[in-house]
Amino acid sequence: MYVKRYYSFWMTIRWSKYSLIYGVLYSSVIIILYEITKIPFSLPWEPISVIGIAVAFFLGFKNNSSYDRTWEARKIWGAIVNDSRIFATGILSFPNSDLPFESKRKIVHRHLAWVLALKHTMRREKTWEHNLPVHKLQFIPRFIKEYSDGMNVEIEKYLSQEELENLKNLSNIPSQLLKNQSNEIGLLNKQQFISDHKLVRLHEIVGDLYANQGMSERIKNFPFPRQYASTGLWITYIFCGLIPFGLLDIFAESSALHYWLTIPFSAIIIWTFFVVDRIGDYSENPFEGGYNDVPISSISRAIEIDLLEMLEEENIPAPYEIENGFLM
Amino acid sequence: MYVKRYYSFWMTIRWSKYSLIYGVLYSSVIIILYEITKIPFSLPWEPISVIGIAVAFFLGFKNNSSYDRTWEARKIWGAIVNDSRIFATGILSFPNSDLPFESKRKIVHRHLAWVLALKHTMRREKTWEHNLPVHKLQFIPRFIKEYSDGMNVEIEKYLSQEELENLKNLSNIPSQLLKNQSNEIGLLNKQQFISDHKLVRLHEIVGDLYANQGMSERIKNFPFPRQYASTGLWITYIFCGLIPFGLLDIFAESSALHYWLTIPFSAIIIWTFFVVDRIGDYSENPFEGGYNDVPISSISRAIEIDLLEMLEEENIPAPYEIENGFLM
Amino acid sequence: MYVKRYYSFWMTIRWSKYSLIYGVLYSSVIIILYEITKIPFSLPWEPISVIGIAVAFFLGFKNNSSYDRTWEARKIWGAIVNDSRIFATGILSFPNSDLPFESKRKIVHRHLAWVLALKHTMRREKTWEHNLPVHKLQFIPRFIKEYSDGMNVEIEKYLSQEELENLKNLSNIPSQLLKNQSNEIGLLNKQQFISDHKLVRLHEIVGDLYANQGMSERIKNFPFPRQYASTGLWITYIFCGLIPFGLLDIFAESSALHYWLTIPFSAIIIWTFFVVDRIGDYSENPFEGGYNDVPISSISRAIEIDLLEMLEEENIPAPYEIENGFLM
Amino acid sequence: MYVKRYYSFWMTIRWSKYSLIYGVLYSSVIIILYEITKIPFSLPWEPISVIGIAVAFFLGFKNNSSYDRTWEARKIWGAIVNDSRIFATGILSFPNSDLPFESKRKIVHRHLAWVLALKHTMRREKTWEHNLPVHKLQFIPRFIKEYSDGMNVEIEKYLSQEELENLKNLSNIPSQLLKNQSNEIGLLNKQQFISDHKLVRLHEIVGDLYANQGMSERIKNFPFPRQYASTGLWITYIFCGLIPFGLLDIFAESSALHYWLTIPFSAIIIWTFFVVDRIGDYSENPFEGGYNDVPISSISRAIEIDLLEMLEEENIPAPYEIENGFLM
Amino acid sequence: MYVKRYYSFWMTIRWSKYSLIYGVLYSSVIIILYEITKIPFSLPWEPISVIGIAVAFFLGFKNNSSYDRTWEARKIWGAIVNDSRIFATGILSFPNSDLPFESKRKIVHRHLAWVLALKHTMRREKTWEHNLPVHKLQFIPRFIKEYSDGMNVEIEKYLSQEELENLKNLSNIPSQLLKNQSNEIGLLNKQQFISDHKLVRLHEIVGDLYANQGMSERIKNFPFPRQYASTGLWITYIFCGLIPFGLLDIFAESSALHYWLTIPFSAIIIWTFFVVDRIGDYSENPFEGGYNDVPISSISRAIEIDLLEMLEEENIPAPYEIENGFLM
Repeated sequence: MYVKRYYSFWMTIRWSKYSLIYGVLYSSVIIILYEITKIPFSLPWEPISVIGIAVAFFLGFKNNSSYDRTWEARKIWGAIVNDSRIFATGILSFPNSDLPFESKRKIVHRHLAWVLALKHTMRREKTWEHNLPVHKLQFIPRFIKEYSDGMNVEIEKYLSQEELENLKNLSNIPSQLLKNQSNEIGLLNKQQFISDHKLVRLHEIVGDLYANQGMSERIKNFPFPRQYASTGLWITYIFCGLIPFGLLDIFAESSALHYWLTIPFSAIIIWTFFVVDRIGDYSENPFEGGYNDVPISSISRAIEIDLLEMLEEENIPAPYEIENGFLM
Repeated sequence: MYVKRYYSFWMTIRWSKYSLIYGVLYSSVIIILYEITKIPFSLPWEPISVIGIAVAFFLGFKNNSSYDRTWEARKIWGAIVNDSRIFATGILSFPNSDLPFESKRKIVHRHLAWVLALKHTMRREKTWEHNLPVHKLQFIPRFIKEYSDGMNVEIEKYLSQEELENLKNLSNIPSQLLKNQSNEIGLLNKQQFISDHKLVRLHEIVGDLYANQGMSERIKNFPFPRQYASTGLWITYIFCGLIPFGLLDIFAESSALHYWLTIPFSAIIIWTFFVVDRIGDYSENPFEGGYNDVPISSISRAIEIDLLEMLEEENIPAPYEIENGFLM
Repeated sequence: MYVKRYYSFWMTIRWSKYSLIYGVLYSSVIIILYEITKIPFSLPWEPISVIGIAVAFFLGFKNNSSYDRTWEARKIWGAIVNDSRIFATGILSFPNSDLPFESKRKIVHRHLAWVLALKHTMRREKTWEHNLPVHKLQFIPRFIKEYSDGMNVEIEKYLSQEELENLKNLSNIPSQLLKNQSNEIGLLNKQQFISDHKLVRLHEIVGDLYANQGMSERIKNFPFPRQYASTGLWITYIFCGLIPFGLLDIFAESSALHYWLTIPFSAIIIWTFFVVDRIGDYSENPFEGGYNDVPISSISRAIEIDLLEMLEEENIPAPYEIENGFLM
Repeated sequence: MYVKRYYSFWMTIRWSKYSLIYGVLYSSVIIILYEITKIPFSLPWEPISVIGIAVAFFLGFKNNSSYDRTWEARKIWGAIVNDSRIFATGILSFPNSDLPFESKRKIVHRHLAWVLALKHTMRREKTWEHNLPVHKLQFIPRFIKEYSDGMNVEIEKYLSQEELENLKNLSNIPSQLLKNQSNEIGLLNKQQFISDHKLVRLHEIVGDLYANQGMSERIKNFPFPRQYASTGLWITYIFCGLIPFGLLDIFAESSALHYWLTIPFSAIIIWTFFVVDRIGDYSENPFEGGYNDVPISSISRAIEIDLLEMLEEENIPAPYEIENGFLM
Repeated sequence: MYVKRYYSFWMTIRWSKYSLIYGVLYSSVIIILYEITKIPFSLPWEPISVIGIAVAFFLGFKNNSSYDRTWEARKIWGAIVNDSRIFATGILSFPNSDLPFESKRKIVHRHLAWVLALKHTMRREKTWEHNLPVHKLQFIPRFIKEYSDGMNVEIEKYLSQEELENLKNLSNIPSQLLKNQSNEIGLLNKQQFISDHKLVRLHEIVGDLYANQGMSERIKNFPFPRQYASTGLWITYIFCGLIPFGLLDIFAESSALHYWLTIPFSAIIIWTFFVVDRIGDYSENPFEGGYNDVPISSISRAIEIDLLEMLEEENIPAPYEIENGFLM
């Protein structure tokens, strides 16, 4: 995500340059045709403005939904932070005094492996996402490295070699990691390190973690319905396609205003509507590995720091840094 | 659901062709009558545009509600994923060591039967749904087969013959399957394989599954209120019915613009409003067995894979594949 | 609720005929006065259209809120379905083997009495509801009978004569029925048929049932705030009252359009706005015993069927049938 | 709250008379100045209508938020009803048989004291509320009496003299009453009348009551942010201030329409926008002791009746009556 | 937050003076250029008004979201109030009689340290916030002092010197304080002052406190997405940049209206739209240490008072006072 106060005007223009360029080209073609043929193919503006209002409604709805998806994604990863802390304090304070500290440490480490595994699962490509090649994310070189290195580099420091090996052939690694947690807690109960009551409480927290994982997967795997996205796009095209005809009508009628003004003015209106459409489009998928993603790398790192400090470990990794205004 | 980035323009046109065709025909009739009779039956545009804004509001409300229904449906099935995992880990890790593994396996299998039975119940026809004959879903042949084969083929591999037989005469099979789970867990408690504390936790998870089932049934059995849907449709008809009269007024007044332009321009506006209306209409019922359904077949399959891997079984079914851009 | 795809156009017209008739009469009076007096009392359209947009906003807000009330009502009764199933499975599977089945059956039956008592409480008349005399609901004769027969006929089959007698003088029968459940469960605990742990779980479910009842009562007893409803109505009246003056201005100015067209055109716009207002008004109170009610009779019946099947009883009542497109 | 179907037109006018009077006066001043000076200080209508649309959006947002505050307040007091019933059934059915009934009764009575104390706390004046002097609420004389009598008269019948005395110097009486409940339940546990399991369940319900109290205090103590309320008011003033200038432009241009019509027409538009603004303003604070309050007096009374009937007491107070269409 | 009924008109103007000044300057430049060059560079108003409507939609969405952030922040701190009371009553009433009161007092005091530490953490500067230098908050001198004194002054009275020392090098002090609570409760359980059942309940409350902390951190650390904020700003600039051209078109055409009126009228419209934009911008970050913040200082103080009264302590601090209409 971007963390400065505003994207600069030039960043905005650069990001949306195609809308502007095509807007200029398209209106130019129409005006040149009009200049050449002298056929008065303009259209009245009033009905076009009614389409414009309908489009504005639809884009409002689309932006709202996209924002809700991003915000829900952030809420879910906020809940992952909370439940990670809750799980760790439970593991640290519940068992009998005779359980060796190393056993607790192992469970907390496996939890960190789960967090990092989930982070990487969230970044797999989906057919409806923008899927910008990761090496093009030039402003965030450290993210490129993390992404290219992949899941194993990050989780292997928190898991035994054997457990890592067993996970390899399974479909959903985070889901099976939580199953391992549940089994280990069940074993602590059978070995009488924790009572039934404490077991059930820990299983409830594992349940909350499953819920968080599932909700994050839901946002990832279920796009903003493509029928709505497509309709929004096509009616925006239609509205923008009609704009130069409508403006031509107004400019051509007026003696004072020259009809060549249709070109820049059309381009501005087209750009305004497209930038409002695109802003939703680029915020729809909060885990697609792009600049506007929910910053799950830095969130995961914050969880690592917090839990390792609870374990009073020595080598605490540093927090993620902002790169060129972006925090991933 | 459709999983490509956008429905192509031609798919959109094909899907909404009737709005376009009727729009052209209707405005043609009016213009031809005008041409023949020369009666100036046009209407002023300004009041029509106020109706247009009211219609845009209403359609915005309708689309919002339809989207919420789809999104809630997806949330519910996401919760079914989560609670299935939680239930399975509870069954696997709670009981005493002397409970044979086969007993645990039987309960997890019955759970998969519940998931699949619920999936099929969700696809029964309702009087307010589109009820497209299933064989017409030409792009998704595998779905046609699954639908035609019906519930029994899928659940019989996870249930004993006897239990299957007992279920046959009951009204709500998923509901009675969960009752069987509850009874079996109660029996494990009476046989002292699980303590009261663990029993209550498992009964709470069964309660969550009941809640998920009930919420899914609620979306299925309670339509977007027909009084709202009908009002939306009728006022859209009225607005679209007035459009050619209003455009005729504008075109006929202007010397430059020829009134025959009323036909294509009316058709475009009519199409725009109807496509916005229809998109909500086709997203209202997320389980009607159509192209825009929430993909409960692939979700159910993902649950099967996850839980069978937890049981460390051999024959894991393959995930659902995307067919021609659709995932069901 | 209506369960067909759309209310037919004529049903819609008949339901909203007063708006149409008064619209025609009112504009006719104005045009006739204009014709007689020749005073140019028209008003400019542009400011009227700004009022129109403000009214459209307000009606949008009102319809949204009405819909939310209906939808929340349906959610609550969906939760009643779920919690009924959860309660029944708890009662059936928790107690020791030495509790006679008849005791469990009695509790489940009392639960059904609670459901049916709550249904009838929901249908008492409120000063802000439409309070159409029930015998006028001509399309749903079976509902008329159920309504006229009243609560006792339905609940007496599920309660002992003594308990029924004791309830008679109490203010809130469903609330006291749940107190009886709570006391009976407390007694089972004191008699050691269920442990403290199971008792608490069952009391939690009773708590959920109390919450459902209370939420249903909240929707019933707290109307859409009358200050909002009244404001919506008065500004719609003002807007519609101004319409013929504004249209007269437009029609009278134009040479081609005859000002008598003001009458039908005014009537259409008035009707459109009123029908949008009325649709919210008729969906505001989801339990008023009207055609658009949330179908709590059929929901209650579905609970009866489900729970009686769990008890493996013989005489299972039939599901509610759709009468002339309505399910109550 | 008002419980009739609609506020009559004259009640609405009387309530909003200042908007109407000032609207008439203001536009008259402008028209008279115009008449005297003959300076054409009119302004074009189109840009004013864009401001009007922006204002309509803002008022829509404000009304939505006000309504949400009222509705949330009602939900919270609905939850107080539910949790009161749940708490009472727990107190009545959990303890061992040897706990004297009088002890249970004392706890339930203290709960009623909490409900009534909270009700009175909710009605303290806040700097942002309307703070109409209570004796001016002429339509609801019984409410005036209850308000003037104050908290002590109502809670002293449910508390021992000693407890009442101890509470006097504390800042938040309802909060300390719940602490007393928690301590008393803790004592029952130490005296072995209730097990740990039951204690924890009762403490959870006390926790829910604390949550309800805190949420009610939140609505009371945190106004609709004054920066939004102020912005809404100022831009409505600006828009309304411009209206007569814009209408003058239209009326003065037209030969048929006389510019004196600006006065009544301006007044109508100004009144429409102000009444939409005021309706939100008067629904913002649901506990300010005004006509549109959430009816917490009658809700509290209903709780008293329900719980006293559960205790099978003799002297049950009567429900609140509707006074002149208002239920408080 | 501001607690008077309305910001005065002059406070509003002063706060938004730049929008007004730049609006006047910008339109003056354009009119002077027009006066000098006589080039008719005006633009038609109708298309500009369509942009205006789109901008109004976008600002509506932005204001809604900002308000939701503020309101959620208030809800979270309301939940902190509730859970603080619940935690304290649990600590006071659960342990065996032989636990010295001093031990309970220590835990409640540590809880107050957590509240105050969280308050100070919430006020650290973020790159996207306004970051007004704190000494400029001239109306609230006591807040300036509290802010400058920092966290340690406030928390050291509630923590032992040793614990305070240990916290110093940790990244997230509130998070580690809750870990200390969890460990201490675990110790009470190992020392048999509280049963497993009570331990689990207290750990659940600690979990709720973690959730509150995490949600508060989420609001603080995740801004309203900058891509939306930036788009909103740029399209408002574009719309406002076009306004004088559009008004010039209207004024220049009319004989009666002089085109110099473009300047004040443009300024008013520009100011209206910018003030609507800015009001959202200033409510986006509810913890930035500004005038419109959620009042977490007074909320924290109320918690201190409530809990110290529960401990029956002598030196209860006074509630926060309103300074010049602001409560922080």
